Amino acid sequence: MNHLTENKTLIDLLQWRYATKKMSGKSVTQDKIDLIIEATRLAPSSSGLQPFKIMVINKPELKQQIFPIANNQQQIIGSSHILVFAAWHQYTQERVYAMIDHINTERGLPISNGDGFKKGIGGLFTLSQEQQKAHITQQVYLAFGIAIAAAAELGVDASPMEGFNREALDDLLGLEALQLKSVLIMPLGYRDEEADWLVKLKKVRTPRRDFVITNPGTL
Amino acid sequence: MNHLTENKTLIDLLQWRYATKKMSGKSVTQDKIDLIIEATRLAPSSSGLQPFKIMVINKPELKQQIFPIANNQQQIIGSSHILVFAAWHQYTQERVYAMIDHINTERGLPISNGDGFKKGIGGLFTLSQEQQKAHITQQVYLAFGIAIAAAAELGVDASPMEGFNREALDDLLGLEALQLKSVLIMPLGYRDEEADWLVKLKKVRTPRRDFVITNPGTL
Repeated sequence: MNHLTENKTLIDLLQWRYATKKMSGKSVTQDKIDLIIEATRLAPSSSGLQPFKIMVINKPELKQQIFPIANNQQQIIGSSHILVFAAWHQYTQERVYAMIDHINTERGLPISNGDGFKKGIGGLFTLSQEQQKAHITQQVYLAFGIAIAAAAELGVDASPMEGFNREALDDLLGLEALQLKSVLIMPLGYRDEEADWLVKLKKVRTPRRDFVITNPGTL
Repeated sequence: MNHLTENKTLIDLLQWRYATKKMSGKSVTQDKIDLIIEATRLAPSSSGLQPFKIMVINKPELKQQIFPIANNQQQIIGSSHILVFAAWHQYTQERVYAMIDHINTERGLPISNGDGFKKGIGGLFTLSQEQQKAHITQQVYLAFGIAIAAAAELGVDASPMEGFNREALDDLLGLEALQLKSVLIMPLGYRDEEADWLVKLKKVRTPRRDFVITNPGTL
């Protein structure tokens, strides 16, 4: 049973969701967490490399430790689970080739089938550290968009969060040993309708007339 | 009538979609294009600034001109419409304050209500050009993720595309005069089941056991 089966469209879901500022402490069931992660796992990424992992935090002591790292934002404490999107520190041949090999194995193709792809993708390794980081981070944001839709589909509130101390969170979660770096946080839970100032305010977006241009340059 | 109303879940839709390599030329109706754009318009962004616009291309001559700019990828020609995600060249006080004023106006609040927000957001303007570009680009990727889900919901195939000559596309579409820069392209259309080599191959993702870690650093 989820929102989609109640004939909600994606637009309905996006109207319903908002960046929840105060959550109620109510638990999200593990099956819903699993579905949100599964949708995120299915997100597309550049060359199918999926250069990130999801850390799931539901231990209260760990949330308490993340709270100051995330500027004391209340959603950290009021949430049920926190997803930390943690990205590869860079594109390494080891990781990239492992993924290409995995794709070919899953497709029942010989590993050598990936040779052309490996050659074609070599340009990634010649990018500067900064360029690699930028490209990897972009893939995380795309998947984060999918995760936002997935949470809304299940009626789970999410609070997309960019503002936190990445180095401190990496230290707390031991991400360096995993060669990962935290990029984004998504507390998941349920809105506290009474206490959240934002839930009562109208959702505002760029007006459609200012958002879309058809066949520019040819008018 | 869309996929959602046929009781498809987001996970079903993400399983169904793929980065379509060959499209059939069949037209997507304007109402579906409008729904995909509307979902994208509803995507969240950092501080609600939505630092991008969507260019919709459906003029055949224009698609022909984009074809070589996008490395002769067949989806450009076989698609019905092409969405070009075009981002602000940087965060300017004029654009940011206009959005904050718009939000307050839409909420029926006095413009002065945004004073604190304007002060709080000032750090954006002190970021380097590179940092601003990175942050703006990230918001575009998040919305691109929503657009991918929106297309799949309507049974429309999409081909997420990073590989094209951005300067040449900006020139063709006259984006510099709009103070915009192209970031991503999404051809929309319908898969050519017979001719697309990718449609027959299994979708492969990082195995779940390698994708998720629960409460890391506390094991």
